[in-house]
Amino acid sequence: MRIARFRHGARTRYGIVEGNEVAEVRGSIFGRSQPTGSRYPLGEVKLLAPVVPSQMFGPGLNFAEHLAHASGITGQTRMAETPNPWHKGVNALIGPEDTIVIPYDSQAGIQYEGECLAVIGRRARRVSSEEGWACILGYTCGNDVSERGWQRADRSFWRAKAADTFSPIGPWIETEFDPRRGSYMVVRLNGREVQRANTRDMHFDFGTLVSYISQWVTLKPGDIIWSGTTGAPENMNRGDVVEVDVEGVGVLRNRVGEERRPRSRP
Amino acid sequence: MRIARFRHGARTRYGIVEGNEVAEVRGSIFGRSQPTGSRYPLGEVKLLAPVVPSQMFGPGLNFAEHLAHASGITGQTRMAETPNPWHKGVNALIGPEDTIVIPYDSQAGIQYEGECLAVIGRRARRVSSEEGWACILGYTCGNDVSERGWQRADRSFWRAKAADTFSPIGPWIETEFDPRRGSYMVVRLNGREVQRANTRDMHFDFGTLVSYISQWVTLKPGDIIWSGTTGAPENMNRGDVVEVDVEGVGVLRNRVGEERRPRSRP
Repeated sequence: MRIARFRHGARTRYGIVEGNEVAEVRGSIFGRSQPTGSRYPLGEVKLLAPVVPSQMFGPGLNFAEHLAHASGITGQTRMAETPNPWHKGVNALIGPEDTIVIPYDSQAGIQYEGECLAVIGRRARRVSSEEGWACILGYTCGNDVSERGWQRADRSFWRAKAADTFSPIGPWIETEFDPRRGSYMVVRLNGREVQRANTRDMHFDFGTLVSYISQWVTLKPGDIIWSGTTGAPENMNRGDVVEVDVEGVGVLRNRVGEERRPRSRP
Repeated sequence: MRIARFRHGARTRYGIVEGNEVAEVRGSIFGRSQPTGSRYPLGEVKLLAPVVPSQMFGPGLNFAEHLAHASGITGQTRMAETPNPWHKGVNALIGPEDTIVIPYDSQAGIQYEGECLAVIGRRARRVSSEEGWACILGYTCGNDVSERGWQRADRSFWRAKAADTFSPIGPWIETEFDPRRGSYMVVRLNGREVQRANTRDMHFDFGTLVSYISQWVTLKPGDIIWSGTTGAPENMNRGDVVEVDVEGVGVLRNRVGEERRPRSRP
């Protein structure tokens, strides 16, 4: 089942995507929901970030192939024995087809990181890895947009990975996806494949991540766990189109824009 | 004016504290609100965390007197030229009189950090320091509970400063307080004064912090900026009572408890 959040007219609604239509539901997508009977063609609605998390966590370095690239930024030289969670700021959330904006004062430009995201479906506190899997409602795609100058300069990822618009997610939550089966996560920049990883190669899998975080932090329905990324990403430029394609989930597509530099600013 | 969030019976409400009473209001505390006419004695309501922020930011090291202590934990040896914001997790929020819980698997025990907190009242994006001050609705007290073992071990403060219950705030938002006038922030542990700092000694003041963060992150009504702390805090133990007293704001009081170790756990 594909759960989408969308706007039609002035209202924000939830629905189930079926073919080229979305069937609106009422109630909670985490509890009970019923069809309202209203159906809209996908082309007539605006898909939004499929959920509004109270918090989002990155796993820390989670693909061995990303180690060489990451070591030049964070100084980390080997895979950690435990996850190293960090907060991805919810201010940064945008949805499918929204524009990723390069801040005018970016130091190093911005890079894509194509990831698979687990959406928590039920409260998790001190759960085991097996229970962690059961707390996941479904999966969506995300682009962990990153500014490497700020990532080097700052003690946290508060702007390097969470300046406004640095968190595109979507297009929907796929509840029948299982990353344990091994799915490719592919990024295309202007149609050219620039990144490819497999969910099977996550150093810490989603069940482990949910379990680990939940030992100290209660995860709530809607919260999001990012998979981490791989390889050595490239910069994105104004006018680019970036797609994160997680096989079996869907394609998240965004354009890249640039903030205008103000005339006079201290 | 003192804006409180409280529970009376099963409902959560907002109100204005006047003497020993709270006068309930309806509407938004960030926009228009009107008295409902209902008044409750403070002793008959449960004060809650006075606001539900979408995000909270710490400033990084912000008092010169905390430098010696902090350098042993984070390696930082001098005051930074810019703030170093980090996310304090909203999962950790609790209110006045709630219990701070020491996790059973804490490595180093937990410490208080008494702080003054600015509550954002209106959207802030790319604002100046002067505009930053104008975006603040008021101030409350907070205890930036910290686990130094995790603070040393981890790459982010996700659990060291945001394990569940590590973020007591309250008792209300004081809108007539001005930290520029210089107010003492005092912590008492079981009635004994253990920490004293002055809001005037913040290395980066709240206007500067709001301005700096807002260059890249849109701050929303309800979001919280912590002042940072000073000195060399001590551990808190089960049964302790900790008070954060910001002169001119109020007193935030919490008990300390301990999580029970489960019988068998991997």
